[in-house]
Amino acid sequence: MRKLLVIGIGPGDPRQVTIEAIDAMKSVDAFFVLDKAPERGVAVKHSLVGLRQEICDRYIDGDYRFVEVPDPPRDRNPADYRAEVRRWHDARADLIEEALATELAEDGVGGILVWGDPALYDSTLRIVDTIIARGRIDLDYTVIPGITSFASLTAAHKILLNRIGEPIHITTGRRLSETPEGASANQVVMLDADCTFLQTAAPTDHIWWGAYLGTADQILIEGTVGDVGERIRETRTAARERHGWIMDIYLLRR
Amino acid sequence: MRKLLVIGIGPGDPRQVTIEAIDAMKSVDAFFVLDKAPERGVAVKHSLVGLRQEICDRYIDGDYRFVEVPDPPRDRNPADYRAEVRRWHDARADLIEEALATELAEDGVGGILVWGDPALYDSTLRIVDTIIARGRIDLDYTVIPGITSFASLTAAHKILLNRIGEPIHITTGRRLSETPEGASANQVVMLDADCTFLQTAAPTDHIWWGAYLGTADQILIEGTVGDVGERIRETRTAARERHGWIMDIYLLRR
Repeated sequence: MRKLLVIGIGPGDPRQVTIEAIDAMKSVDAFFVLDKAPERGVAVKHSLVGLRQEICDRYIDGDYRFVEVPDPPRDRNPADYRAEVRRWHDARADLIEEALATELAEDGVGGILVWGDPALYDSTLRIVDTIIARGRIDLDYTVIPGITSFASLTAAHKILLNRIGEPIHITTGRRLSETPEGASANQVVMLDADCTFLQTAAPTDHIWWGAYLGTADQILIEGTVGDVGERIRETRTAARERHGWIMDIYLLRR
Repeated sequence: MRKLLVIGIGPGDPRQVTIEAIDAMKSVDAFFVLDKAPERGVAVKHSLVGLRQEICDRYIDGDYRFVEVPDPPRDRNPADYRAEVRRWHDARADLIEEALATELAEDGVGGILVWGDPALYDSTLRIVDTIIARGRIDLDYTVIPGITSFASLTAAHKILLNRIGEPIHITTGRRLSETPEGASANQVVMLDADCTFLQTAAPTDHIWWGAYLGTADQILIEGTVGDVGERIRETRTAARERHGWIMDIYLLRR
């Protein structure tokens, strides 16, 4: 039976990889790369591939093999968001299933490296479940947890996620405006290309923002939304322009 | 200036420790142990100390030194919860400040090992901030993120935290009943000695529960609350009785 290891590798710092993840990486015959489609050319891809290769080079003795799986096209502004995401996942599952069948021996070990932790806003496990449910190839899989980007964010800012006893709400830019009142004391926001906090937060709310966490390009900004909100937006736009891509996250506290 | 490293070491599996945490541990002159007061005698303490020593033995070459800081008494059912937690933190800060001053050279490096990640329901950073605000000793500190227990939980169950696009709410047993309707699709619940989900969840809600995650004693149960809720309560009570302590967590999905 083919084996697949879904490996969380943290948000970017090669030192924020666990021993369990390193051992898993060493046992992999072929890594399958499921990159997001570049939005402005090859720079996006090369930069993320570069970070990933730095991690592999550091921890894997000898050679390793990457299999690039092309990313199917995706409608970023669909009428039905969930239906489009599901269609896109199915198309990805087709391509990955085929790659596993053709690129891996029947007792081979495949690996998929996931930024941060595989349970948090990542579609890899959903795709693996789809492939297994289809039952066309025999596949056993294991999940290896990784450092989540909000743990890197709070460590870099040296802060706690919450005040005493308070709950924490993790959401996306898309859903930020829907957070109910009783859940908004501490919000971790991911995947927010539009700096939605500028619309939803009060000027007195505190924000801790970070981009390219754990890499040489790390940027940190914190303060009240009134004081630093516009600066975050400008910094984000300029950095994204300069690098061709951005991974960022923030904690918003009422 | 004295330096303090607040090091996240994950939920219990020595392999779920990062390279950054290992490097930090190697640079520490003395570790300060801030154990919770045992609830039923020394067994509690020894068991947690045993897990921690396994991690230190595995990764630190040569000797290491632990300084035990006694835990001040705490009222577990106070009239004013926050005020009591603050009073208790202040009393802990007194003892830790004194231990840092007496047990560490003026250019020494202290370490505090934190289960899981230091940003999530842990009081170490609050205590460090208190000590620094007092200004009696010069102290520089660094935070090293760790694998959170919910990442271990979801990896062990091979699940995602959420369905497509949904937010995630992290809360405690104490606050579970206060989660507003629009935030309750996926709830991660920590510090719940009373299995509060038996009061708040519908029988059709799905629960993924785990205890002693990443250790040889790991227990996993999943199913609908109606099907497995009582079994979780019984298993939890028996395991806590057997071990003298328990660390557990669950994901509740509507």
